[in-house]
Formats: sequence, structure tokens, C-alpha cells
Amino acid sequence: MTVVPGRLVLVPNGLDLGSGEEIDLTEVLPRAVLAQAASIGHWVVENAKTARAFLKRVDRHVTLAQPLQALDIRELPRPRKGVSTPEPADFGRLLAPALAGHDVGLLSEAGLPAVADPGALLVSAAHGLGLTVMPLSGPSSLLLALAASGLNGQSFAFVGYLPVEAGARAARLRELESLSRRQGQTQIAIETPYRNATLLGALVEHLHPSTRLCVASGLTLSAQQCQTRTVQAWRAMRHEIGDRVPAVFLWLAG
Amino acid sequence: MTVVPGRLVLVPNGLDLGSGEEIDLTEVLPRAVLAQAASIGHWVVENAKTARAFLKRVDRHVTLAQPLQALDIRELPRPRKGVSTPEPADFGRLLAPALAGHDVGLLSEAGLPAVADPGALLVSAAHGLGLTVMPLSGPSSLLLALAASGLNGQSFAFVGYLPVEAGARAARLRELESLSRRQGQTQIAIETPYRNATLLGALVEHLHPSTRLCVASGLTLSAQQCQTRTVQAWRAMRHEIGDRVPAVFLWLAG
Repeated sequence: MTVVPGRLVLVPNGLDLGSGEEIDLTEVLPRAVLAQAASIGHWVVENAKTARAFLKRVDRHVTLAQPLQALDIRELPRPRKGVSTPEPADFGRLLAPALAGHDVGLLSEAGLPAVADPGALLVSAAHGLGLTVMPLSGPSSLLLALAASGLNGQSFAFVGYLPVEAGARAARLRELESLSRRQGQTQIAIETPYRNATLLGALVEHLHPSTRLCVASGLTLSAQQCQTRTVQAWRAMRHEIGDRVPAVFLWLAG
Repeated sequence: MTVVPGRLVLVPNGLDLGSGEEIDLTEVLPRAVLAQAASIGHWVVENAKTARAFLKRVDRHVTLAQPLQALDIRELPRPRKGVSTPEPADFGRLLAPALAGHDVGLLSEAGLPAVADPGALLVSAAHGLGLTVMPLSGPSSLLLALAASGLNGQSFAFVGYLPVEAGARAARLRELESLSRRQGQTQIAIETPYRNATLLGALVEHLHPSTRLCVASGLTLSAQQCQTRTVQAWRAMRHEIGDRVPAVFLWLAG
């Protein structure tokens, strides 16, 4: 008997983790995505606890096909110290339900899975096994911030986290600003919320006065803010940013 | 009397333009986004005809607050030959309803406005006027493709369109592949659908055999496909791609 393999379904999450606010998922997820999520019995997730919280919220809108306790929820292997990447065998085990004919959902803590999180290795393993990968429409804080920034949306780069050490961070900022100037490319970075103020301070200090800088925070939340100004204008005003709210930082050299 | 200004609301569209398939908007847009779109009376759009078609589709799910004929729908100024950018005054006129207290919707032909389209200049003008810019959650073919590719989602660049002339295109591909190798950065490009096959041919010919190449086409449509393989594997197989379906091309040097 031939088994028709299941798919790896990339299920988007909301953007409110850790913000202290819980939005209604119908604000950010299409009805069809909630229905898909409610139908999936096998999950690979960044964090099992927040995944269960997500599925409880889905259940308010579309009843889960199986009770929460009956779902097979496994966590993505975390990179271990001294080990550069998890073993391929780990991913094979996680994808075994798909080979046996069941859809497997991949869920991250916020937004689209496998973007700005460790899920891409599982997706890559799925391609290696010949599985169909199905991304579902949902919010990406990076792209919402880019759209709202008014900076160049026809050429942009996401550079992840910047170095934490002040000297290395300043050097990296100058390098990225120079690249932005040469290529007309918007640069996008994120930071752990409790370091938001430090990063904003460094951007305002080290970027050129004519560079345009956007700070987008609390996207899709009631506290949503998005401001784009020249660095010169940022310097001339008091600037504050919360230490719990997820933020995206974008700049384009003038 | 003080007028409270309206906002510039960034309204996402579906990804099915020109594909020959019309999906149900509830597959890709959250209920709250459909409701917001239905409430807006003033629009700035990439194309008035496709904007009206979009609003008719919204009306099937949430009744428009005003009849379609009563809506104020204006097109973004197109860059004219010999004129590098539209005049700032053009944008001031388009945003006048917001200054008078009405929300203005910005809509592109596909996906998030101001990403991979000319809308960013209007968003920038809105920031200049001190207006609140509000991005709404919706699909981005670039990020859905990135998530589904399994390539590096922690560092990536969208480079827009590649040169059409074969020699210039090959040179640009080599430059971007070298950047991808140095930075571990996924490169993302798009092409006008009728040139999809030409671009895929060039990628398979010019990239290094060990580079991983992903082609994602028809995202969110029934014909959705997403394949990631090494260039060597692409070379060893017949590869076809439709000339009507929107596609995203991604690669990461090995």
C-alpha cells in the first residue's frame, strides 16, 4: 500500500508574544489559516508552551479537530553549545508523521515560521525528503515595518541582530550604512526588547545625520508606533522606546 | 475647530493578479482587514481598475460602507520618462483627505503595498506630514517564499528585478552569489511572469553547482509550487515554469 505523504504546513502566529497584550487572532490571521491550524494533529514548534497557548486561541474561533492534550507537539532542537547545527536525524524524526501521511504544522513564537527564527532547518529537511511545503498567509513584523517605513521597498536586507558589544556594533552599523548608500538598500534589524533603547541610542549616535531611520514597534498591537525621520531629527528630540514591546529598526542612507 | 487627521492605512491585496485563478479573499486576509478595507472611502492605488475589482471581492464578505461608485479612488503617480521621481506636491494632494480627517487606504496590485512596488514614496510623504501610518496584516509573496524555501531566514536580501540583458544578468548573478557566500545571506529576486523561464535558465546556468536554488510560484494559489534543490540537481532534471504565474526566485551559496 502506498502512503500519500503529508505536507509541512507553515502556520503563522500573531505578533503579540511578551507584549502584555493579547489580540484577537482574527485581526491578523485569515479564517482559512485558523481552520487549517485547527485541523493539524502533529506539530513542530519553537516552544511547546506558547504553541499550546496559540492553539487555545485558535480553538476560540475554529474548534480543534482533536483535544489539545491529544495533539503531538514537539519542539525544534535548539542549537547546543559547541554543536553548530542539530543533526539531520533529529529532523527526520520530527517529520516522520508527514512520511506516514499526516500534515505536520511548523509554528514559531511570532509571525511566519522559518523567518528570523530557527525553523528553516526543518523546512530544508522537508525538501530533502521530497515533502510538499505549504506556507500560509500571516503577519511578518519585518515586512509590515518595511511597508510602514516609507523606505525603499524595492531593495532591502534583513541583517538579524547586531553585535551587543558597543564597539563592534558601531563598526557594523557603519558597514551597513555604507552598503545602504552604495546599493540604495534599506537595512532591517531586530533586537531583544530589553535592549531596544540601547540599539536606538546607537543608531541615532552612529548613523549619518541625513540617513533616514524608522522605528516600528508593537506592530498589530494597540500600542503600534511607526516613525520615520532623519537621524538629525531623531537627535533633536527626546526618543523613548518600551523594553517589552517587539521592535523593528530600519534605515536608508540619504 | 481642530480636525483630527486620518491615517494612511496600508491594505494588503491577494496574490492572484494575472494568474487566471481567483481565490477567496478569506484565504489570505484576516476578517478585521476585510472590515477595515470595507470602511475606507478614500483610496490611493497602483491601478484603479484592479482596485475596484479588489473592493468588489471585499464586498462579498463585508459590505462596503459606501457604494463602489461613490469611493474616491486615485492612482499613484507613475514615474515619467526623464523625471526621476514624482513631485512631492502630487503626494500632498493624494493625502489631502487624511489631513481633512479621513483615513486613506493604500493598495497595490498584489500583496503588501509599498513592498516591491512604487507606494513607498506616498508612505514617506505621509511621515513628512506627521500622519499615522497603519500597516495591516496580509500576504507577502517574498516572505512566504522565503519561509517555504528552507534557506537562511535570519539573513536575506530582496534585490528586485535582475538586468534583462543576458551578459549584465550573468554578471549580477555572480556578484549576488558571491555576496550570498560571504554573508550567508539568502538572495531573493522576482521577474515579470513571461520572463520566468529565462530567469530560471540563467540561474541554473550561472550559479555554482553547490548553491541551493528555490523557485516558489503561484503562492496561495491552487497551483502553488515550491522546490529547493542544489543547482547541480536542477541541472540534472527537466525544469518548467509557467509564464503567467507570479514567481519568486531565491538562492543561497553553499
